[in-house]
Amino acid sequence: MIATTQQNMTTELDLGSTDGPPRNWKGIGIAMVVILAVMSLVLLSVILLTPESHLLLRSHLTMEDLESEEFKVHDPRVAWLNNEVALRTREGHVLSFSLTSNLTSTLLDNSSLDLTTTKFQVSADKRFVLLAYNVRPVFSQSFTASYAIYNVANDLLELSPPERQKAALQYASWGPQGNQLAFVFDGDIYYQPSVPSEPLRLTSTDQEQYVVNGLSDWTYEEVLLTYVAHWWSVDGARLAYLSINNSATPMMEIPHFLGGLYPSNVLFPYPKAGSSIPSVSLFVVNLYGPAHTLEMMPPDSFRADSYISMVTWISSTRLAVRWLNRAQNQSVFCVCEATTGACSEDVPLFSADSSVFYTILPAKQGARGEYHHIAGLAAQPAIPSVPPRFLTSGSWDVTVLCALDEKAGKYFLSTEESRHSRHLYVDLDGVFQRHCITCNLIDGCHFFRAIFSPNQTHFTLYCLPGIPKVTVHSTKEPSYVVLEDNNRLSKALEDKRLPETLFRTLPADNHLHLKLSLPQGYEANLHPLLIIDGIPGSQSVTEEFALDWPLVLSSMHSVALAWVDGRSGVGRGQKTTAVDPRKLGSMRVRDYLAVILLMQLPYIDDRRMALYGKAFGGYLTLKMLAATDKLFQCSAAVAPITDFRLYAAFSERYLGLPAKEEHAYSTASMLEEVNKLKDENFLILHGTADRVHFQHSAELLSRLVKVEANYSLQLYPDEGHILREPRSIKHFQRTMVNYLHTCLKHRPLLDPIEDEE
Amino acid sequence: MIATTQQNMTTELDLGSTDGPPRNWKGIGIAMVVILAVMSLVLLSVILLTPESHLLLRSHLTMEDLESEEFKVHDPRVAWLNNEVALRTREGHVLSFSLTSNLTSTLLDNSSLDLTTTKFQVSADKRFVLLAYNVRPVFSQSFTASYAIYNVANDLLELSPPERQKAALQYASWGPQGNQLAFVFDGDIYYQPSVPSEPLRLTSTDQEQYVVNGLSDWTYEEVLLTYVAHWWSVDGARLAYLSINNSATPMMEIPHFLGGLYPSNVLFPYPKAGSSIPSVSLFVVNLYGPAHTLEMMPPDSFRADSYISMVTWISSTRLAVRWLNRAQNQSVFCVCEATTGACSEDVPLFSADSSVFYTILPAKQGARGEYHHIAGLAAQPAIPSVPPRFLTSGSWDVTVLCALDEKAGKYFLSTEESRHSRHLYVDLDGVFQRHCITCNLIDGCHFFRAIFSPNQTHFTLYCLPGIPKVTVHSTKEPSYVVLEDNNRLSKALEDKRLPETLFRTLPADNHLHLKLSLPQGYEANLHPLLIIDGIPGSQSVTEEFALDWPLVLSSMHSVALAWVDGRSGVGRGQKTTAVDPRKLGSMRVRDYLAVILLMQLPYIDDRRMALYGKAFGGYLTLKMLAATDKLFQCSAAVAPITDFRLYAAFSERYLGLPAKEEHAYSTASMLEEVNKLKDENFLILHGTADRVHFQHSAELLSRLVKVEANYSLQLYPDEGHILREPRSIKHFQRTMVNYLHTCLKHRPLLDPIEDEE
Repeated sequence: MIATTQQNMTTELDLGSTDGPPRNWKGIGIAMVVILAVMSLVLLSVILLTPESHLLLRSHLTMEDLESEEFKVHDPRVAWLNNEVALRTREGHVLSFSLTSNLTSTLLDNSSLDLTTTKFQVSADKRFVLLAYNVRPVFSQSFTASYAIYNVANDLLELSPPERQKAALQYASWGPQGNQLAFVFDGDIYYQPSVPSEPLRLTSTDQEQYVVNGLSDWTYEEVLLTYVAHWWSVDGARLAYLSINNSATPMMEIPHFLGGLYPSNVLFPYPKAGSSIPSVSLFVVNLYGPAHTLEMMPPDSFRADSYISMVTWISSTRLAVRWLNRAQNQSVFCVCEATTGACSEDVPLFSADSSVFYTILPAKQGARGEYHHIAGLAAQPAIPSVPPRFLTSGSWDVTVLCALDEKAGKYFLSTEESRHSRHLYVDLDGVFQRHCITCNLIDGCHFFRAIFSPNQTHFTLYCLPGIPKVTVHSTKEPSYVVLEDNNRLSKALEDKRLPETLFRTLPADNHLHLKLSLPQGYEANLHPLLIIDGIPGSQSVTEEFALDWPLVLSSMHSVALAWVDGRSGVGRGQKTTAVDPRKLGSMRVRDYLAVILLMQLPYIDDRRMALYGKAFGGYLTLKMLAATDKLFQCSAAVAPITDFRLYAAFSERYLGLPAKEEHAYSTASMLEEVNKLKDENFLILHGTADRVHFQHSAELLSRLVKVEANYSLQLYPDEGHILREPRSIKHFQRTMVNYLHTCLKHRPLLDPIEDEE
Repeated sequence: MIATTQQNMTTELDLGSTDGPPRNWKGIGIAMVVILAVMSLVLLSVILLTPESHLLLRSHLTMEDLESEEFKVHDPRVAWLNNEVALRTREGHVLSFSLTSNLTSTLLDNSSLDLTTTKFQVSADKRFVLLAYNVRPVFSQSFTASYAIYNVANDLLELSPPERQKAALQYASWGPQGNQLAFVFDGDIYYQPSVPSEPLRLTSTDQEQYVVNGLSDWTYEEVLLTYVAHWWSVDGARLAYLSINNSATPMMEIPHFLGGLYPSNVLFPYPKAGSSIPSVSLFVVNLYGPAHTLEMMPPDSFRADSYISMVTWISSTRLAVRWLNRAQNQSVFCVCEATTGACSEDVPLFSADSSVFYTILPAKQGARGEYHHIAGLAAQPAIPSVPPRFLTSGSWDVTVLCALDEKAGKYFLSTEESRHSRHLYVDLDGVFQRHCITCNLIDGCHFFRAIFSPNQTHFTLYCLPGIPKVTVHSTKEPSYVVLEDNNRLSKALEDKRLPETLFRTLPADNHLHLKLSLPQGYEANLHPLLIIDGIPGSQSVTEEFALDWPLVLSSMHSVALAWVDGRSGVGRGQKTTAVDPRKLGSMRVRDYLAVILLMQLPYIDDRRMALYGKAFGGYLTLKMLAATDKLFQCSAAVAPITDFRLYAAFSERYLGLPAKEEHAYSTASMLEEVNKLKDENFLILHGTADRVHFQHSAELLSRLVKVEANYSLQLYPDEGHILREPRSIKHFQRTMVNYLHTCLKHRPLLDPIEDEE
């Protein structure tokens, strides 16, 4: 639902309200009497039965709730045009909303296409909408789709390469000017200067060589964390793109069992630890005038066996590029000249001229360690190296640079308020002066995401903890418009007994950060505990909102939930210490166990504890089971990594090359200590098409069979790391809740004297 | 252990006895006193606790028993030479035993090679032993192996094709004369006239075409039920072989997960229902003089899309061949002239000349239906068709023709004594006169297998029910020699409480045959019941002995076991009725349910029943679960067929071609009634490399996930239809016993009033 704090909001936006039929007052009266009678009975029994009567009026959050439409979070997928936003309503309409006139107009009606499953992008000149449909996911970020261009005035136009009609494309997107666009088909990039013009093929590769241009392959989805591997210069005159060559990369074959007479296996290049990784080149193609392409030349030591981990345009002709060596312990930050292909490794630092480029770099904060802060660098090669000039400092991290306007200020998200929050700040006049925009903006909201308009005059805010809200703001005025308040969800949740969230920092030898979700009125009882294992380098102790099965487990079955951020190789959001990455697994195990020992929370029943983890988290779960002796009643490992030799080459950052670090890989392997799992009670879940290959669980299972371990197994045929089929998701969530609830329900039989619940 | 009923048996054969150390009489005395004291206490408590005191003195059969060496059945793998047998002792020695002199000599010592895992064959002239080692199974019958020839006087000689040293062969065997031999390497047959001579390549095929000569491919292992698809003429002058061409057969890919960095998938031709089947030709090659090869020409209507289901030499130059159409409802029996390749379809029937060929054919027995009896046919084409002349008749089946000696008589196995027994009979003078050789031979033994010596003067008998025994007999005298009595196993089992076996025939609309294994003293209690589902066309109600996990379940946990033979498309061992093969599945389900209703055994607790089945049996198990509503407490389906479309083309005999019989396949499919399994409690077990492809379970699982069925899953990575890894076998057996015991242990909670055990 769209509402506004301003009075001149158009009524068209109020799409959520409907006119009902005339009211039957007699019926309502009778119903009220009945309801009141029932209510008083309920109240009476509640008062008689418990002192926490007000809580019992609220119902538990159930799996049925979670699966109902009422409890679905709606993301309007706001896209910025200058001073306008395009957004999708819950009903599937695509609207545009002008911030200057506060007028709303319909770009696309949900009747024209089934828009609920599509993705849309509006062209820079707002004349066209690009629709992706038949979206078929490939790996974690990648997909193929059919694309159509919708002329706001007219009708649909199919986007396709010159040779093929109605072809599924790998990707398509608008450029920053007019309605120029680029798309990728069969590994090659095509450019259209405008919608009516013919597509121009920018690359031509031999498909036998497994080359993909402008998009990530499997490896680069993990390196760049995006599918798109091409970048428009701001003026739309140039396009930079990666060319990823997998001709030397070994192929992984994933069996697909379903739907055919014969299983149809899928082959794709996937470098495992120690195998050949793809070779990568960065090209820039000139789009205005005759197309010509130049390679950006990497520094000598990064010519082979390296990654490109970042590409950004810093001016209309210059790119900032980060190369990373294979071991991922050395990186170089270069500025490349798009007109010549020359890249300068001696990145010149902040200079007095106006051509300044800002980025986030680690900065030493005395004895408190390194934190990430905003640094200014010159886009123009200039004087030799001087230390970077930092615009911010303190024992907190700048997590995202949002907007850089020399006049209006620099906008960024940081952890200054607390480690688990993200607030938007503006650095008004340059040096160590900042103002928090979101700190008291929305009640109870401490975790924001911000997206600025191209001209940086407006921004949308996503408030993520509690009920997700999307608001649109001007940098000039404090008033704002609510685009989506997920009001229906708010109301639905009001009646539910949701756990309370607490944050704790434990004084281990390293600071351990803890997020606890505790059943309401938790102090009156002893509760079982579920520890949720995260992945290294990412932060799980945040205020982000996740309406997921652990919440049901907590609400329905009074299970306390704990997320732990231990030390990790990545310094974001915490003090960085010198941790040997090869010991990361065992360190995390120690950290987690420390949590359990240190915590000693009076309301936790330490005889009813369970673990849950996925991928690396699944690995940690199994490692912790192996390191303990029946400390956990039960555990669930989803698609666990069981041996890093079988995992992606990109994970060499933890353990190095298998040939050199034989011992480290053996020590880290879960397969070599399967006998320690013999007496533990756990559940393995795996999709057979998971990117953490089913091979990991197969190797584990064959060993578990040998030691006759007490495990259960659940397979999701042809499902990947993220379950796609709604029925699989439902099954997974219910399996988790039932399995954990059943095992945590009763105390172990060792001590059956009292039952405190 | 080898013992003898004759006194002149050499002592060397008594390999089982060992001389102990001198006895400590004092120690024995003390031990005896202690044992007596304990015994009396036990006896006392037994008498106090139960009226069945004598039974309680025996211990239960446990899984540990089953896994111990003491309980292993030893098969001496007796091979006939003329008047001599070669056999392998429990210790791994290969001995020869002369029936004329009763002398034993050692052919191979277990010290020379690890012989426990090898296969051996002795050459016709007894000068050489052919040893297969490094035997690696391929499908159900097939394997590859390294072969060595052991000269009894000298040492080892490696057998290999001319181009390759130390190559693993697909198969090797001696011919019937001297030490001629043939072997198959890479799909081609090689012939050696004698051990010292060079191998001669008899076939040369293009490997790209997937042709195999002389051996079964995947399909023919199911059609012929043997790996070997070549046949020596009795004089060793000719070799007949199948040439199987899979160039048009679709390939099946089986993922192999274990052991490598990348999974290594295995591809092989596997025709699924409706797909192209291999084309097959029968050739005869002349081995004496210059090798020349002739194709045996099939009848016109069997030229394409057909199977060859039987090949037998009936004289030194003539072959009997059976061609079978793809639908498997028409077959033709031909006699082929090896010298010309001409095959005569009008098989001439019994004639007066001496060249008579005997076979087993169905014969109408009045209103009692068709039974299989011995028929005589002329090997020489002669007068036009007359009805076959049958040598036997009656409401019983001849199951195997063992030996045909015009003077000494025709030896055969039949079900004359009872349907579940197999006795050896001799037809002394031709017409309807027969004598039972084994009927009173060995106490309690009613199920025999017989193997005759080449000159048909002697035979070995395998007694299969109870404790397996192997004896060797002369056709002339009643005395015999015991080659293996599995005495150690006999003694071990004497102390165990084993179930009693009963056979019942139930008067359903079709006769239903039932084998029950009931815990001792079964009438005093109510017992849970496990029904073991078999496969159609094979008989599971026999007296064969199987020391397997169901016996443990019965002995340890007092579970009654039931095997059922319902109607089937195959008439062997039972009255054949006109059953539509498309309805076989549902018929079997009805039969089984009839059993349960008809049985009404007072000692069976019909609230505690379970099902078990493998492959087709697994399919039946699931079908029965779908047809009932919580009738069974739990069930286990191993590698179940879930949709016949996914199964082998050879299974078209039940349902026809999928394109024509769409409805039959849909009705038969388990996948279309998964929702009926929703409330049933069952376990799916599957090896990921099973020949009933894991695809069957994958399709089932993806649907079970949708309906949120209450199932458990156990996978055996890289294991096939028959588990190979000893730890997998152990795990499987223990899983079965634990799962079934746990679910059958208590009555359902619906009726908790009394507990009768």
